[in-house]
Amino acid sequence: MSIEDKLKSMGLELPPAPAPAANYVPFAREGSLLIIAGQVPRAADGSLPYVGKVGRELTEQQGYEAARLCALNCLAQIKAALGSLDRVKRILRIGGFVNCLEGFANQPEVINGASDLVVELFGERGKHARAAVGNIALPRNVATEVEMTVAVD
Amino acid sequence: MSIEDKLKSMGLELPPAPAPAANYVPFAREGSLLIIAGQVPRAADGSLPYVGKVGRELTEQQGYEAARLCALNCLAQIKAALGSLDRVKRILRIGGFVNCLEGFANQPEVINGASDLVVELFGERGKHARAAVGNIALPRNVATEVEMTVAVD
Amino acid sequence: MSIEDKLKSMGLELPPAPAPAANYVPFAREGSLLIIAGQVPRAADGSLPYVGKVGRELTEQQGYEAARLCALNCLAQIKAALGSLDRVKRILRIGGFVNCLEGFANQPEVINGASDLVVELFGERGKHARAAVGNIALPRNVATEVEMTVAVD
Repeated sequence: MSIEDKLKSMGLELPPAPAPAANYVPFAREGSLLIIAGQVPRAADGSLPYVGKVGRELTEQQGYEAARLCALNCLAQIKAALGSLDRVKRILRIGGFVNCLEGFANQPEVINGASDLVVELFGERGKHARAAVGNIALPRNVATEVEMTVAVD
Repeated sequence: MSIEDKLKSMGLELPPAPAPAANYVPFAREGSLLIIAGQVPRAADGSLPYVGKVGRELTEQQGYEAARLCALNCLAQIKAALGSLDRVKRILRIGGFVNCLEGFANQPEVINGASDLVVELFGERGKHARAAVGNIALPRNVATEVEMTVAVD
Repeated sequence: MSIEDKLKSMGLELPPAPAPAANYVPFAREGSLLIIAGQVPRAADGSLPYVGKVGRELTEQQGYEAARLCALNCLAQIKAALGSLDRVKRILRIGGFVNCLEGFANQPEVINGASDLVVELFGERGKHARAAVGNIALPRNVATEVEMTVAVD
């Protein structure tokens, strides 16, 4: 089964790869390394359903869903870069940023929204290193931002 | 025209490569990857003209100029690492950090100060992936910090 | 003298490599690049001795010690990944995150806790590029988080 078929079997669909918010590109490759720009939780219709701070405007569960949507947009960029998700050799690193208040301590649980998706989707190839931190503010006031570094064939 | 001549034609000059603020080095290379340490907006005379939060002490336009100055210092480090900016194959990634208040949502516009510079200077080779986030505080209370990952010949 | 013997001569010992806090792995390798996941200041007995903000609950010196402990945990992960610290070719990059208040400006001095350790331990091979920033919150409310990118033989 292709990775995209697997994604469908999980009830998910690749959204259109979002256009960058500014003067950069959504991915850059050097040799076997593919770098995916930080993705915000933009829905397929272009809207931003997760705006505000996790732990205040949004619950931790909503933060998890926001991180999952960021990761889905990363996948859309990987597809745009490589033509097929099957060319992913390994998700190497996820950088996860959580818009939160002082004292919020569950960035790992929130960013699991991204990690759970790629681990379920890619299996062993989805197991990645990660840094998850809390930020005072994020672009467009979104709840989460996720970037990825990917090894490709 | 060399990249440095192009930089001059843009009215800019490489500053002296700033010494690190602490016990690290300004760049490290492995194979074709060159990693540039986070640069603050230090002027050629050593002063820090952009101190404070974007959106309070500093306008968004000043934040943009701060990010541009960070990127100019990254270029100075690339020159120090490679001997010539012409050896840049591709700017792969920019990490941009903005010192801001809660609710500030225009990190993309601020970090464009760095992105616009490298895209204008290097053309296609300057097109990079990027992550831009908001931070509660940055070293020396500067407005922006910018790091780069570069592919080199 | 092996790097581990050197570490012992510095009065330090590798802790058990901490298990990840969530659904990710502590390291991922591609070619000569080894990426170490963000490590928190977890002591060998599993406790978290540095909780709170540097500059409020914790002094800058305690922040330095927290960053040193994060780096020690990174070393434990490198050992787990490679079998021996002697296979480190170069510490390429440290990413350092400091849990702090607005206006705290000494992230470089805090993250030196990590940098001083690897420079003393590895000598020339320990000299790394670095980005150090201030965050509103970190996982488990710890004072610092440190990630590393390492070149390996």
